[in-house]
Amino acid sequence: MWYVTEEDLIPAAIGAAILGTGGGGNPYLGRLRARAELRAGKKIKIIDPTEIADDDLLVAAGGMGSPVVAFEKVAGGNEETDAVRALERHLGRRFTAIAPFEMGGGNSMVPLVVGARLGIPIVDGDGMGRAFPELQMITYLIYGGSPFPAALADERGNRIVVDRIVDAHWLERIMRSVTIDMGGHAGLANAVMDGAFCRKAIIPNTLSLAIRMGKAVLAARRLHEDPGEAVVSQAGGRRYIRGKVVDVERRATRGFAKGHLVIEGVEDDTGRRVEIDFQNENLVIREGDEVPVTVPDLITLITSDEGEPITTELIRYGLRADVLVIPCPDLLKTPEALEVVGPRAFGYDIDYRPLVA
Amino acid sequence: MWYVTEEDLIPAAIGAAILGTGGGGNPYLGRLRARAELRAGKKIKIIDPTEIADDDLLVAAGGMGSPVVAFEKVAGGNEETDAVRALERHLGRRFTAIAPFEMGGGNSMVPLVVGARLGIPIVDGDGMGRAFPELQMITYLIYGGSPFPAALADERGNRIVVDRIVDAHWLERIMRSVTIDMGGHAGLANAVMDGAFCRKAIIPNTLSLAIRMGKAVLAARRLHEDPGEAVVSQAGGRRYIRGKVVDVERRATRGFAKGHLVIEGVEDDTGRRVEIDFQNENLVIREGDEVPVTVPDLITLITSDEGEPITTELIRYGLRADVLVIPCPDLLKTPEALEVVGPRAFGYDIDYRPLVA
Repeated sequence: MWYVTEEDLIPAAIGAAILGTGGGGNPYLGRLRARAELRAGKKIKIIDPTEIADDDLLVAAGGMGSPVVAFEKVAGGNEETDAVRALERHLGRRFTAIAPFEMGGGNSMVPLVVGARLGIPIVDGDGMGRAFPELQMITYLIYGGSPFPAALADERGNRIVVDRIVDAHWLERIMRSVTIDMGGHAGLANAVMDGAFCRKAIIPNTLSLAIRMGKAVLAARRLHEDPGEAVVSQAGGRRYIRGKVVDVERRATRGFAKGHLVIEGVEDDTGRRVEIDFQNENLVIREGDEVPVTVPDLITLITSDEGEPITTELIRYGLRADVLVIPCPDLLKTPEALEVVGPRAFGYDIDYRPLVA
Repeated sequence: MWYVTEEDLIPAAIGAAILGTGGGGNPYLGRLRARAELRAGKKIKIIDPTEIADDDLLVAAGGMGSPVVAFEKVAGGNEETDAVRALERHLGRRFTAIAPFEMGGGNSMVPLVVGARLGIPIVDGDGMGRAFPELQMITYLIYGGSPFPAALADERGNRIVVDRIVDAHWLERIMRSVTIDMGGHAGLANAVMDGAFCRKAIIPNTLSLAIRMGKAVLAARRLHEDPGEAVVSQAGGRRYIRGKVVDVERRATRGFAKGHLVIEGVEDDTGRRVEIDFQNENLVIREGDEVPVTVPDLITLITSDEGEPITTELIRYGLRADVLVIPCPDLLKTPEALEVVGPRAFGYDIDYRPLVA
């Protein structure tokens, strides 16, 4: 058990944005919201997955919607907490801890805000070990957690509870429509689970990993060292290419930011050209006829000089970037998980081959 | 207090389809469902609005979606009851009676089915006195009832509860999206209200009116009398034109059947040509440069020979039809009501002028 301090927030936001692989929304606003809670005297208490009690009642909480919208439409600040409270009223029970959805961008910070507001701890871990674009892509649901009840809330005070849903794909479909109606961004609470299940299904220690990664990046900046090296020293993996963004095509569709970008190598990588597809998150790297890296392994861009993570909505022509590739957690590599988060789940007719780091 | 018998169902379906002004879905399937309940030994108990107790807890229940879809996608049969039960669980209270949404087509029969299944009475009356295409267009909401909680359920077992909503227009917007996701038709329960309020806001005795109208039509058929005359003898109003459908244009859009039809007069009306716009329901009559009849007054088509009501989805070229116009109930003529169900609410830049029958 430990408490997040204001000093942890910038590193956490940097690390979470790197794990966010381009998605999960920009962590900047989320970080300010977490800081506001701390400055208001609230505590952000973190527990290790091993500290979860069997009869704890946990829920995942975060933002749903296109990160492009989340960045432009500032969150009201209450929607995720409202969603959690709506579920508590619906169930007639109180949650004892928050289990984060995803360790990516804004959604890495939101659980801290919700936990602080409700006065309950947040588990150091998450349901993705990264960010993913769709609701069913969380280990809590992949490993048998119930897709209902779930709640969605917006900043106007609209609140929807899913009382029952056939499966996680239906949950995604309906929640996505309602999110679009709500203006493209909403607060979500789902994956209600007991402690015994959560301990098995959560990807552990991703918040502390994010903070360590962020601190390593900040140290590299201070010492004029290579920030990409600093990241992979904490997370594993390697730099795939150093280059320059020469093309980016992005469209907002059905609540997603879909598109692709092209990077041309510089320095040692001069002459190479790689293409990266994204759907909120970076999905695959193509180089020539090869697809050497795919989801669920992590493909993340940082600026070459400062190691600043580059989220999908901020990619622009001319940006100097290192593309880092990081092996995903083992819980995402099982056949059950690959069915939901492997390349075929995103429409690619290729098998997942684990990244060799 | 009285009980609906199997002999009432065909007249009720005919009368409700006439009041449905083209919308509310085809009553055929709803009638079969109500009959199945009676044949299974269930009771359909009707109470007069004056018999509602102050502390009764009522809810409106019906189908939501495009009538075109409702006709093609046969209702599973449980969705409206599931929606009501979901609201009961959400509230932690039992409803004591059902207040129908609309006296139009399928939705006139659904409350009978739900009441029979739950073993509670149905009020003889409804929230529209006819059919309307959108959720906010019910007197229960127009006169200050709360738009939340509300529930939507489909035949697969998906159930959504609206825990809180800003206003009835937001309810319509979100429920419409979810209905479309659910395949274009879903069971809806909303307008939770106490008896004291319901007595004031309900349009009274529309079920018994529908049954009387249907019986009058059936009698006219037997006696080879004019069915249009039989209808207006019960409901008021008059025949606007007798003619032939010479054009119909219809499209399914955002869960609605929108379009218009053209009727050319025959017999005494030879030489006249009228156009009727519809959005699920018939909205306005145009003749030359005039718009002589508009919502909320009733514009309804019946076959000239048999007095069979013609719902929007069944209009076809060549059909011989009487267009009947019937003054709407007084509760739809107030300024509050006209703001929601008057011609301007449907995008027409004209004021409502009450039909002179």
